[in-house]
Amino acid sequence: MQMPSGVHALVRRTHEERVLRALQENGAMSRGEIARIVGLSRTTLSEITASLLQRGAIVIVDTDASRREGSGRPAERLALDPASAQFMGVDFGHRRVHVVVADASHEIMASGATRYDDTTPWQERTALALALVERLTAEAGVHYGALQGIGIGVPGPYPAPEGRSWPRATPSGTVLRPAPEGVDVAFAERFDAPVIVDNNTRLAALAEAISGTDSVADLVYVRLSDGVGGGLVVGGQLVTGSSGLAGELGHVTVDPAGRPCRCGKRGCLETVASVPAILAACWEFGLPLENLRDLADAVARAHPVADRVLREAAGVLGRVVGAATMTLNPAKVVIGGEITQLAPVIVDQVAATLGADLFPTASAAPVVEAARLSDDDGAIGALAAVFHNSPLLARYPETADVKGGAGARDSTTEGAAHVRP
Amino acid sequence: MQMPSGVHALVRRTHEERVLRALQENGAMSRGEIARIVGLSRTTLSEITASLLQRGAIVIVDTDASRREGSGRPAERLALDPASAQFMGVDFGHRRVHVVVADASHEIMASGATRYDDTTPWQERTALALALVERLTAEAGVHYGALQGIGIGVPGPYPAPEGRSWPRATPSGTVLRPAPEGVDVAFAERFDAPVIVDNNTRLAALAEAISGTDSVADLVYVRLSDGVGGGLVVGGQLVTGSSGLAGELGHVTVDPAGRPCRCGKRGCLETVASVPAILAACWEFGLPLENLRDLADAVARAHPVADRVLREAAGVLGRVVGAATMTLNPAKVVIGGEITQLAPVIVDQVAATLGADLFPTASAAPVVEAARLSDDDGAIGALAAVFHNSPLLARYPETADVKGGAGARDSTTEGAAHVRP
Repeated sequence: MQMPSGVHALVRRTHEERVLRALQENGAMSRGEIARIVGLSRTTLSEITASLLQRGAIVIVDTDASRREGSGRPAERLALDPASAQFMGVDFGHRRVHVVVADASHEIMASGATRYDDTTPWQERTALALALVERLTAEAGVHYGALQGIGIGVPGPYPAPEGRSWPRATPSGTVLRPAPEGVDVAFAERFDAPVIVDNNTRLAALAEAISGTDSVADLVYVRLSDGVGGGLVVGGQLVTGSSGLAGELGHVTVDPAGRPCRCGKRGCLETVASVPAILAACWEFGLPLENLRDLADAVARAHPVADRVLREAAGVLGRVVGAATMTLNPAKVVIGGEITQLAPVIVDQVAATLGADLFPTASAAPVVEAARLSDDDGAIGALAAVFHNSPLLARYPETADVKGGAGARDSTTEGAAHVRP
Repeated sequence: MQMPSGVHALVRRTHEERVLRALQENGAMSRGEIARIVGLSRTTLSEITASLLQRGAIVIVDTDASRREGSGRPAERLALDPASAQFMGVDFGHRRVHVVVADASHEIMASGATRYDDTTPWQERTALALALVERLTAEAGVHYGALQGIGIGVPGPYPAPEGRSWPRATPSGTVLRPAPEGVDVAFAERFDAPVIVDNNTRLAALAEAISGTDSVADLVYVRLSDGVGGGLVVGGQLVTGSSGLAGELGHVTVDPAGRPCRCGKRGCLETVASVPAILAACWEFGLPLENLRDLADAVARAHPVADRVLREAAGVLGRVVGAATMTLNPAKVVIGGEITQLAPVIVDQVAATLGADLFPTASAAPVVEAARLSDDDGAIGALAAVFHNSPLLARYPETADVKGGAGARDSTTEGAAHVRP
C-alpha cells in the first residue's frame, strides 16, 4: 500500500498519544503494563517512552517493588510528570460537598468536605465548595497552578431534561431539585480550566469501571439508596443518553399495576428495591425496622422476613439488570449503596436471577459484585471523569517544543504547589 | 491561561479533522450544514474549507439547488474528493450476498448480488462474494484503486461468543451457524484494506441512525423476522458489548414460564414477537395464516384476530423497548423487518406501550418509527460502518504535503475507477 510522506511521523505521534492517554487514564504504570494496554511491542514502546522521558512529558516515579508479588527485578513505573497537572473532583451530595485534588500520577494531594442543609440553594452550595477549595490551599498548600480539569458530580439527572419538569414531587410532597445551573461556570471562571458536570451516580459507575487493575469497558451500575439510580459505561465511555437520562434503571417499570412512584408512574423498580421500599416491605410482613442499622441487625440474626424481603427485591432487581445485560452485554454488573454492604444476599440473589435470564452460556454472563467505592467516594468518580476527558493530551510537548528535559524527571508532587503566574 | 507554542496549529488541525470527519460520515454537505455539525462559526469554517479546498483534500461537488425547498441562493456542497477514496459494503445473508461500492462523497458507484443456498459453507460464500466483486470491475468499471475500507455484515452474533456454543439448535433441529472466521482475512488480503466485520442487524442499526438529514447519536433498533434481533447506537458508536452480544433484545425474558426459545431459555421476546410466533398465535386464535402475505391480507381486511395478536405482541415488544429506553435514553427507536411495513399497528402499539413506561415528560420520549431501510439494505449498513471507522482521516494531506491542488476540484466519480499502481 502506498504510504504518503509524513505518515511515519503520524504513526509515531499516534503511538505517543496512546501511551500518554493510558498514563493519564490509569496513573503510574510499568512499561509492561503500558505495552499491554496500548498494544505495542516492548521494543516500540521503549523507543516511545525514551523519547517522552527525554522531552520531559513523562517521568519515572518509582519502581513496582512494593506492589510486586514474588521475586524478579522490580520494574520502573512511569507517569505523566506529577507536577505537570492537577485534577479536581467535586461531589455535591444532598447534605455535603466533597473535594479531592490529584496530580498527574493520580496521587491524591488534598481532600476535604463541607456540610450543608439539604434545603441550601445551589448558589450557596457552590460558594461553600469554592471556599473549601481555598481552604485546601491554606491547609495543604495546593495552589492549582496547573489545574487541567475539574469534574463535578451533582445529584439528579444532568443535563436536566428540558422544561425541568422532572423529577416531580414525591407523594410525601418533597420536591427533588433539578441539576444546578451555574456551578460549572463558577468553577470554570475561578480556575480557568475545563469543567465536566455529570450526575454523581453516573460518575460512580465510571469510577467502578476503572477501579483496580481489572478495569472494564462495559459496565452496568445500579445503586440502591433512598431511590434507585444507575449509570452505564459502554465501550469505555460514560453514557449520557439523548436528554441526560441514560442509566435510570430505577424507573424501569416492573409492575404496571404496582405502587405509585415519585416520578409519576407506577411500579418502577424503585418502588420495590429502594431502601425505603425494602424497609416498608419488612413492616408489612411484621418486622418493624426504622432504618438501615435495624436491617443490618435483622440480617445478622438471619431473620426470615428480612431474608425473604431482600431476596424478593433483589430478584426483581435481577430481572431488570438481566434485561439491561441482554441489551448491553457488560463485562461487569456492580450493585452499590450501603445496603449491599450490610446484606450480601442482595448481590447473591441478583447474580442468581440474572444468570437465569441470560443466554445459557457462561461466556455471556457478567461478573456481578458489590461496589468497591462507597457512597462517600463520589469525588473519586468526578476525578475519574477528568482523567478520561482532560484536554491535557492536546497540549503535551511536541518534539519541536521540548520543555523541562531530563531534569524534569526529578519533579515531585510538591513541585505542583506553585502559585499561578 | 498559558498557551504552549504550537497550540494554534493543533487547534486548526483539530478543526480540520472535525470538518473532514463530518464529510466522511455524512457525505456531501453545504458549508451551513458542516458548520452546524462541527459547531464552528461560519467565518472559521470558511477559512478551514478554503484551506482544504486549496490543498485538494475536499472538492465542490454540486449545489443543493435540487434538494432545496423554497427560494434563496443555492449553496455549494462540499465533499471529500470522490476520487480520493472508495468504500465497500458486503452483506452476507442466509441465502445471498449483496455488495455495494461508494466513493468518498457517498455516491454508490456499483452494486450487485449473488444467491446461494443456506447450507453453503462460509468458505464458498466468501469465494462467491469475491467473484461478485470482480464482476463489478468488469460490468461497472470499478477498480478499487483507492479502497479505504470494507464493511462486512454477517448473520448471527459477532464476534462469536467463546466456545461457539451459541446459538443452540432450534427445537425443530436447525443449527444456526456461528459467525464465520476467515471472511475478514480473505477480503483484507485481496484488497490490502482494513476490514470491519459485524452482525448485520447491528450494522442496520447504524445505517438507520445516520440515514436522512436527522441523524441521531443514540438509537435502539429491533428487527422482527424469523427471529428478533437488535442493535444499539450509543453516543454515535455501534455497541458490541463485552463478548459481541450487545443488542440481543430478542432474548430478553418476557415470561419466565413462557415457551422454550431456540436459545435454550424460556419466554424470550422472540417467542412472542418473531414472525413465526405471531403466525402461530393467529392459528391458535382460529386464524390460519401460512406466511407474511396471508398476514398482510388479514391486516388489509382488518381481521380482529390479526389485530389482537399484533397488538399483544407489539405490547410485549413495547415493554422490552421501554426498559431499554429507560436504560439508554435514545433519541429514536426503530422497528425493522418486513412485517412492520405490512402491519403499521405494530409501530403504533409499541409507541403507545413505550410511552406509558417512560418518565411522564415529553422530553424523554424517543421518536418511534418503522425502519427506513429494508432488510435487503444490509450492505448500506456495512458501508455506514466504514464511513464511520475508516482510517482515511489519518492520511489526509497535511499543509506541507499538498496533493492535487485546485485541479482536483474537477474530479468526478469516474475519476475513481483507476487501476491500482
